[in-house]
Amino acid sequence: MERTWTNARLATMAGNGLGVIEDGVVASRDGVITYAGPRADAPAAAGEVIDCGGRWITPGLIDCHTHLVHAGDRSGEWAMRLDGASYEEIARAGGGIVSTMRATRAASEADLVATALPRLDALLAEGVTTIEIKSGYGLTVADEFKMLRAARSLSDERRVRVATTLLGAHALPPEYAGRADDYVALVTDEMIPAALGLADAVDAFCEDIGFTPEQTGRVLAAAQRAGLPVKLHAEQLSALHGASLAASFGALSADHLEYADETDAKAMAAAGTVAVLLPGAFYFMRETKLPPVDLFRAHHVPIAIATDCNPGTSPTTSLLLMLNMAATLFRLTVTEALRGVTVNAARALGLADQIGTIEPGKACDLAIWDISDPAELVYRVGFNPLHLRVKDGECC
Amino acid sequence: MERTWTNARLATMAGNGLGVIEDGVVASRDGVITYAGPRADAPAAAGEVIDCGGRWITPGLIDCHTHLVHAGDRSGEWAMRLDGASYEEIARAGGGIVSTMRATRAASEADLVATALPRLDALLAEGVTTIEIKSGYGLTVADEFKMLRAARSLSDERRVRVATTLLGAHALPPEYAGRADDYVALVTDEMIPAALGLADAVDAFCEDIGFTPEQTGRVLAAAQRAGLPVKLHAEQLSALHGASLAASFGALSADHLEYADETDAKAMAAAGTVAVLLPGAFYFMRETKLPPVDLFRAHHVPIAIATDCNPGTSPTTSLLLMLNMAATLFRLTVTEALRGVTVNAARALGLADQIGTIEPGKACDLAIWDISDPAELVYRVGFNPLHLRVKDGECC
Repeated sequence: MERTWTNARLATMAGNGLGVIEDGVVASRDGVITYAGPRADAPAAAGEVIDCGGRWITPGLIDCHTHLVHAGDRSGEWAMRLDGASYEEIARAGGGIVSTMRATRAASEADLVATALPRLDALLAEGVTTIEIKSGYGLTVADEFKMLRAARSLSDERRVRVATTLLGAHALPPEYAGRADDYVALVTDEMIPAALGLADAVDAFCEDIGFTPEQTGRVLAAAQRAGLPVKLHAEQLSALHGASLAASFGALSADHLEYADETDAKAMAAAGTVAVLLPGAFYFMRETKLPPVDLFRAHHVPIAIATDCNPGTSPTTSLLLMLNMAATLFRLTVTEALRGVTVNAARALGLADQIGTIEPGKACDLAIWDISDPAELVYRVGFNPLHLRVKDGECC
Repeated sequence: MERTWTNARLATMAGNGLGVIEDGVVASRDGVITYAGPRADAPAAAGEVIDCGGRWITPGLIDCHTHLVHAGDRSGEWAMRLDGASYEEIARAGGGIVSTMRATRAASEADLVATALPRLDALLAEGVTTIEIKSGYGLTVADEFKMLRAARSLSDERRVRVATTLLGAHALPPEYAGRADDYVALVTDEMIPAALGLADAVDAFCEDIGFTPEQTGRVLAAAQRAGLPVKLHAEQLSALHGASLAASFGALSADHLEYADETDAKAMAAAGTVAVLLPGAFYFMRETKLPPVDLFRAHHVPIAIATDCNPGTSPTTSLLLMLNMAATLFRLTVTEALRGVTVNAARALGLADQIGTIEPGKACDLAIWDISDPAELVYRVGFNPLHLRVKDGECC
């Protein structure tokens, strides 16, 4: 099947900037881009020809860090907190991450798919064509794998590419209280070896309230032994040099990074580890420590942006809003923000050879926009100018 | 025409809280609510009966402070600022409010309607049934009135109630540089007397970078003479006691209010002036001075929330997102936030007898939601669970 999009303005993300081509053409065959460039140089249009009416085309957006699959509802707990309840009172009322764990354990795989779909649809409606989804609310072998299977099966329900990440080391389940090392052993000895084929990567939460750098190192080492690439929740609330640790394992990404320092930035640069910034969590938790964007720039660490969609600290389903928050709160430029949800998000998933730019050989994943300039995608707050989404060459 | 919505959970906003009625019924005749209450007490259903499947119904949302009608695009200017350009460089490049003024003056009334419609549609898609729209980018008699006519005519294009506000005293147009009093005279002597029938209220920007309290007082007095209610942009960037001034004119609302103090709160409470908070502008401008919510609570000043949709300081078209920002940034409770876009927003427009609650005698403006609890409307970030919008008893 051949398709050609003509009369378009392209932001291909090829090279180091937006890769703008005015009066551009994109051609695809069997879901793969065969040409992307100026009309003047384009081959004769073949197959179905679609006139874009001068609209802008970007790569399909990539949300490279989400906890999209989960059960339960934390809005009541949040309302309590606004009413002045303490964390202790909320915990006594059954709130916190444990409430999501309980609901997720109680849910069937079909339940998890059904409750994730409205959130997924909200992202797809904004031009997302690839999404990363983590486990991490099951915290048993069976429940973690149930989450991963639910995540995988979302790509049967909708036209979307799903990358799955095993986040068994997300939190210590209550039944392991006081026995963190035993739980880490469950993750390293049982979960990770069995995850091959179901998880595309392994992640952990390295934090004072999560797992120590030493425990995290064991998780990352187990992933390496299993041949799975790693990512890491690092430096969100304190400086533990988790980002450096992740880099020492050649991590695809280190995520959050508010407390990262120059040592971390240098290690990440050397390892090619992407800095995934999560402004939605920063906003929702009213954090004040900004991630060291200038250090990432100085050391040429690629920067990506994601929703961190999760019920506790970032209940958001708008990647476009994250573009604005990355610019407004973290002062990313328009180019940095847009590369953060395309080419650099692809790198954060180890998929840079397949997606993230509009170039021959890449999957034909496109977002076509009713905008007059790509800056509009970053500037507007709570506005969705998507005209059409294209996944593997098919209009959705 | 009679219609009845059954099998619904109601948040009527009657009384002082959410006015929750489980297993509720809403009945309407000719666009007016005839019954809203428990099914047990409901009259026999008449006319078309709609089973809501247990969904929640709130009053249709009210966005009580917007600059929705304007021409031009400020995204490029914003991109420049992120790239490090100074305000001076942006002004030299033709940016700032003057760029919106020039584009708005150059636009026809039809242009203004056409460019406002996508923004309006984004709001309506979230359950908005009433919107206030200000002039203020024309800054000549003819261009201000062109804006007001465009705003009015939006209610011919879509099912929405539009309240118009003359904001002639928004900024000093360049041709009056150094002659602010002459421009104020144009507003008081020409614009306001001619605005009756086209504007529902008069507003001004009382600020160091806007008009002095003395000039503002002349504008409000002219409105009073013309029989038009007043509102005021007050205490956004500095403490000038504009809110107290507005209250002395019995203002419907004072808006922004970051720098308001107890004197202002007392004056507003005595006058019944609503505090309209605009968290989108606070967010987008990265302000740090929080509005004195505790003082408004202590003195029983009604609090409303609005988008402030405008191209310079709040390019947002999501009132649901403003609910979250009001809670996340200003620590409003769920009840305060939801009353802020319904009953108190109606008061801020002088329409409390017609809209804002689900009660007999009010217009049948409803929003029907796919949620399990009203808190979800405030908790989620960039997610729209609207099932259906009802305006004057008609499903949209």
